Amino acid sequence: MGTFKLLATDGSARAGELHTAHGTLLTPAFMPVGTQATVKSLVWDDVKAMGYDLVLCNNYHLYLNPGCEYIAQMGGLHKFMNWDGMILTDSGGFQVFSMATLAKIKDEGVHFRSHIDGSKHFFTPEIATRAQELLGSDIAMVLDQPVAPGATYQQTKEAMDRTHRWAERCKACHTREDQQLFAIVQGGFEPELRRISAETLAEMDFPGYAIGGLSVGEGKALTWSNLEACIKYMPEDKARYMMGVGSPEDLFEAIDRGVDMMDCVLATRIARNATLWTSYGRINIDRPIYKGKDEPIEEGCDCYTCRTFSKAYVNHLFRNKELTAYRLASIHNLRFLKRIVIGARQAIFDGRYSEYKKAFLDNYQVVNEKVRLDQKQRYLDRKAKEQA
Amino acid sequence: MGTFKLLATDGSARAGELHTAHGTLLTPAFMPVGTQATVKSLVWDDVKAMGYDLVLCNNYHLYLNPGCEYIAQMGGLHKFMNWDGMILTDSGGFQVFSMATLAKIKDEGVHFRSHIDGSKHFFTPEIATRAQELLGSDIAMVLDQPVAPGATYQQTKEAMDRTHRWAERCKACHTREDQQLFAIVQGGFEPELRRISAETLAEMDFPGYAIGGLSVGEGKALTWSNLEACIKYMPEDKARYMMGVGSPEDLFEAIDRGVDMMDCVLATRIARNATLWTSYGRINIDRPIYKGKDEPIEEGCDCYTCRTFSKAYVNHLFRNKELTAYRLASIHNLRFLKRIVIGARQAIFDGRYSEYKKAFLDNYQVVNEKVRLDQKQRYLDRKAKEQA
Repeated sequence: MGTFKLLATDGSARAGELHTAHGTLLTPAFMPVGTQATVKSLVWDDVKAMGYDLVLCNNYHLYLNPGCEYIAQMGGLHKFMNWDGMILTDSGGFQVFSMATLAKIKDEGVHFRSHIDGSKHFFTPEIATRAQELLGSDIAMVLDQPVAPGATYQQTKEAMDRTHRWAERCKACHTREDQQLFAIVQGGFEPELRRISAETLAEMDFPGYAIGGLSVGEGKALTWSNLEACIKYMPEDKARYMMGVGSPEDLFEAIDRGVDMMDCVLATRIARNATLWTSYGRINIDRPIYKGKDEPIEEGCDCYTCRTFSKAYVNHLFRNKELTAYRLASIHNLRFLKRIVIGARQAIFDGRYSEYKKAFLDNYQVVNEKVRLDQKQRYLDRKAKEQA
Repeated sequence: MGTFKLLATDGSARAGELHTAHGTLLTPAFMPVGTQATVKSLVWDDVKAMGYDLVLCNNYHLYLNPGCEYIAQMGGLHKFMNWDGMILTDSGGFQVFSMATLAKIKDEGVHFRSHIDGSKHFFTPEIATRAQELLGSDIAMVLDQPVAPGATYQQTKEAMDRTHRWAERCKACHTREDQQLFAIVQGGFEPELRRISAETLAEMDFPGYAIGGLSVGEGKALTWSNLEACIKYMPEDKARYMMGVGSPEDLFEAIDRGVDMMDCVLATRIARNATLWTSYGRINIDRPIYKGKDEPIEEGCDCYTCRTFSKAYVNHLFRNKELTAYRLASIHNLRFLKRIVIGARQAIFDGRYSEYKKAFLDNYQVVNEKVRLDQKQRYLDRKAKEQA
């Protein structure tokens, strides 16, 4: 299809551009997540001001509420949410298996109950594809079946084989010419299956490929070894999108291994919990030590928040649970990731990506893995409690 | 002091300007409320874009958290919150008697417990004045003692007399030359006391005067009769600020009776509950009937929200409890009030204020008083439950 153009490489790292119906994406790229047709706490002017021109929306959420037929009647997702940039929609595969309840899978499709109201639904490759065509996203994803860490080899293989069959069915029924349909490489945490998945899907000749089912709670070593196990078998002339990444350090690692596109809710989710990224690591801006600090969250940061407010003020807003805090923190974190990918692209063109990565990571205190997973568990527990 | 300049009258309605250390306020004016040094859900660029140049902050809240001494150390309230417009601070009198618990009043001052953590505090006229000097607001208010609807004549008179004694003490200890101290007329719902309060305070020669203790839950007839009972005895050459007003229809009534300045949380509070003002009345944008409506909240409205998003989209955001909804709704309602006062000022200059008011009210469906008070009670009940 020729929608992706590889412009430069530096080791495995790649710089390129992806052409879509609503503009050209410069890669490597990070995509903010606008699950329910809005990037939480922000408006599109914020998103644009941070330099983003592609956002990810979730077919699963929009299908349940307000409905893809409805959005089509409203003129499509771009018009409904008044965003003239690019949109990528996830198929809902990941959400059906991670958020919905009582998912029951057959080869035809997957029965599940809505996480909102328990209502019954049925997704097939055809339904998920049709739904995304109704939304009119620039990039749609095939319906896939990821597996959780801990799945057996056999379970992983079955899910992978089904993902491949479903990918074919998605491709067969996909009709919209202004929308590109990306396949999703699965294979869990089995490097051999990862290779097979990449090769099998490569033969089907999709316009772009994602790596799914990684960065879902496993240790980082597993993430990167399984990425490496598949990415080298993915077509060089197609965009490679690693789903669910992530943190600043993970962006560097993924780009280093040849990833072109990434998305994750982490930036905005931790922002709403007062966790902000700086070049030396994470800070929790609601901690008492930031009281009295008349300086930006990060000296030299060009985000709206840092150009406008002090740590002391953002600390005050968070401590008082003021709504404005969530927006200011989200802007800071998203702009932080945007600067990383802008810098990465330039470094790749300049043939100094390794130095760029090293300079960042030498300075950046990565969160201890145990602390990180504990934090995530606490977040999930709190959320489960809220929904109970 | 000559800070207020009356420029035109039309019947009792007045157009003027109030000069302060951080700019000139064109009156009649409405002031958005930024209780905790932020207008809930907004940033100052939003506030400015709506045309506002004066916001109200609450000494009571800032005194408790993060503290007025602290804000002074941070360079004052303007610098702390990075707002270069005008600030009016309420003294905390109203909050001590309405929000704090176990308020115990003596002539020296009032003992109370924080609504946040139950900690003990003591406000005197001197302390409240000093706190506002530390904040460095452009306009400070005297510490007053309002009474609730239902207070006896004797209770009302005692509170009024104390308010007068406290006003004198505030004036005596006030030193900041870049800050104007306004007195507050009290007298509850006793027209005779209202007159006495206005006359007594007028003799003390404050640079501006507020009308306090009205619009606190009484019926509208009582509000306006008690306003009328005092406003005619207030100095013509000083600004007249009616506290806690309000709704679109109340702005018209207050201006009609000679009020120059008003403030209220109503615009932003109901916005966060999905209630929006239009020229034909209130709408609840989260109602199902707004699904599918591809039109602005109000045709012709020049607010950011109406220029950018449809009813259908704002409906979607509210139904999904998306944070962005609160900001978009707050912007719409605050801009709605701003347009009313801009129009009122022009109408007064043109000598057609009555027609302007009539044209608006003929079109605008006022909320039934019982419905309104029921809604308010539900809000208070919900809030009490949240805090319990």
